[in-house]
Amino acid sequence: MENRTEISELGEFGLIDHLTKTFSSRRGETVMAIGDDAAVLGTGDEKLLVSTDMLVEGVHFDLSYTPLKHLGYKAVMVNVSDICAMNAEATHITVSIAVSNRFSVEALDELYTGIRKACENYRVDLIGGDTTSSAGGLVISITAVGRAKESAIAYRNGANERDLLVVSGDLGGAYMGLQILEREKAVFQEAPSAQPELTGFDYILERQLKPEARIDVVKLLGDLNVKPTSMIDISDGLASEIFHICKASGKGVMIFEDKLPIHGETSKAADEFGMNPTTCVLNGGEDYELLFTIAQEDFEKIKNEQMIHVIGYMTAPEDGCNLVDKAGGQHAIKAQGWDSIAEG
Amino acid sequence: MENRTEISELGEFGLIDHLTKTFSSRRGETVMAIGDDAAVLGTGDEKLLVSTDMLVEGVHFDLSYTPLKHLGYKAVMVNVSDICAMNAEATHITVSIAVSNRFSVEALDELYTGIRKACENYRVDLIGGDTTSSAGGLVISITAVGRAKESAIAYRNGANERDLLVVSGDLGGAYMGLQILEREKAVFQEAPSAQPELTGFDYILERQLKPEARIDVVKLLGDLNVKPTSMIDISDGLASEIFHICKASGKGVMIFEDKLPIHGETSKAADEFGMNPTTCVLNGGEDYELLFTIAQEDFEKIKNEQMIHVIGYMTAPEDGCNLVDKAGGQHAIKAQGWDSIAEG
Repeated sequence: MENRTEISELGEFGLIDHLTKTFSSRRGETVMAIGDDAAVLGTGDEKLLVSTDMLVEGVHFDLSYTPLKHLGYKAVMVNVSDICAMNAEATHITVSIAVSNRFSVEALDELYTGIRKACENYRVDLIGGDTTSSAGGLVISITAVGRAKESAIAYRNGANERDLLVVSGDLGGAYMGLQILEREKAVFQEAPSAQPELTGFDYILERQLKPEARIDVVKLLGDLNVKPTSMIDISDGLASEIFHICKASGKGVMIFEDKLPIHGETSKAADEFGMNPTTCVLNGGEDYELLFTIAQEDFEKIKNEQMIHVIGYMTAPEDGCNLVDKAGGQHAIKAQGWDSIAEG
Repeated sequence: MENRTEISELGEFGLIDHLTKTFSSRRGETVMAIGDDAAVLGTGDEKLLVSTDMLVEGVHFDLSYTPLKHLGYKAVMVNVSDICAMNAEATHITVSIAVSNRFSVEALDELYTGIRKACENYRVDLIGGDTTSSAGGLVISITAVGRAKESAIAYRNGANERDLLVVSGDLGGAYMGLQILEREKAVFQEAPSAQPELTGFDYILERQLKPEARIDVVKLLGDLNVKPTSMIDISDGLASEIFHICKASGKGVMIFEDKLPIHGETSKAADEFGMNPTTCVLNGGEDYELLFTIAQEDFEKIKNEQMIHVIGYMTAPEDGCNLVDKAGGQHAIKAQGWDSIAEG
């Protein structure tokens, strides 16, 4: 009998590694293929960046509470964010969709209104795509193309010991926004006449439904003449992204709980759900903020900037990935969050 | 009550037009966005080309007779073919897939073996992608990137009156190969113990299961120093592609039935099914040959080449699109094929 290995045994990152490990590069202009937020191509100083994402109904979005306009916007945004995470500028996208006939042309108009709005806000041109029917749910596949000078590109693997770890905006909000939406969906399914209780959570609902790629942060760093030594965007939660940078750079990290930027609504919602806000920051995804490292010498340039926050520093690899809690206790950060049993 | 327009009312090309007509370009480097086989980007002489395609199980392929290895190969090939259709060279691809857990890792290995084989044959590097779960069938979305000198790029809109219309390879084979496969699938469903009768149709089965992008034709034209005035690849059947070139270029066309390149197996299979081979050529899709126009002065350069065939010439737009049959009768070519009632 033939071997059958379940996809779930490998996990998403394991599966990509497994499927692509036998591919080799045969083109000199391939600077970075798989393994960062975007591929980097080109032989000259001006590089081309390419990133792609696929969003599947029922896996990445739930149309019962995601307006199609917001979905279209977000689908573009996640790709623009991947290009931002290379410290680069997205310039063009292609959009392919598979739709079943339960969608009307008017529904697709809504989706494309969101896509167009994102193209306007991020200054990217729609240059192609494919539209096909689907027996199943809605699938959206977007590829973004961008550009940057070679000298400006920030990979995941460039962090040095003693570099400062910096994050933009605030974290955990998109995750708590999702909890609110899921709760209201459950209430609605129980009692369709009940009014949703969404008041007081405008900010975190917007964090979930209409997150923004941080093109402003990339611009700020350029204006401040700060070149990040490494960079990634926060799509899966802070802990997961920290591990990517530490693994790629061969470093450890020390972060401080009291430095984590958390919005008041995020804390309030976490309280209501009996969750620890720090756990939401570490494990909750979809904030699409930028996480990056800078040389200590650059601290003076950024210290007065409101949109970015130093949350820790890089250490030797043997020191591992650690969080210092508000009481001064030290905890090893785990792949899925952090160990709440104090170790130090 | 809200308006509801069914997607089927617009058709595929109508839907793309409808959804993208309100998008405007805001980047100077966008030379060609939507409307050709690939987008063309860049400000210098060296241009970047981008094309994308989405393949959906049950719509574009049937896993009951398509080996996953062939599917992977073909998914790459269709994108490489789109770049060829600009008279350009594909260099890089991204591959995203959505799969349900009915697929094993071993099944995906088969798919990626085909993808890798195509990368090797067409000399393209895999540079990224996304792997996600799907509640429905398999979805494959591939984006190809390529390059060409501005002066070499062949758009659909450059055909001139009196230009020769040229096609590579032979036509109708992929369509007849599909008929054979569908027939055998029906036989199998009726009587699973029956042996499939595929002998004698090796060539057209391969045309359907393992078509090739004509990178060799692009290279030949370069070697011959022939720049096509317009070009497209034949994915939907000759009639449809002829209409694209005539519409984009604002021209008419005259083609000759006795000049259409048809393989012996294609004719034989058409006979078995009681079909007219010329109808298969005009309406059958998926040959992935190149259809292009060249200036009459270039005829001397190509006349001895075996892999390309002159099948007609471009005319004034008011003359329309016509086919001269083997008896000398003239017929207007219709969007779905040709009118078999002689008009002239």
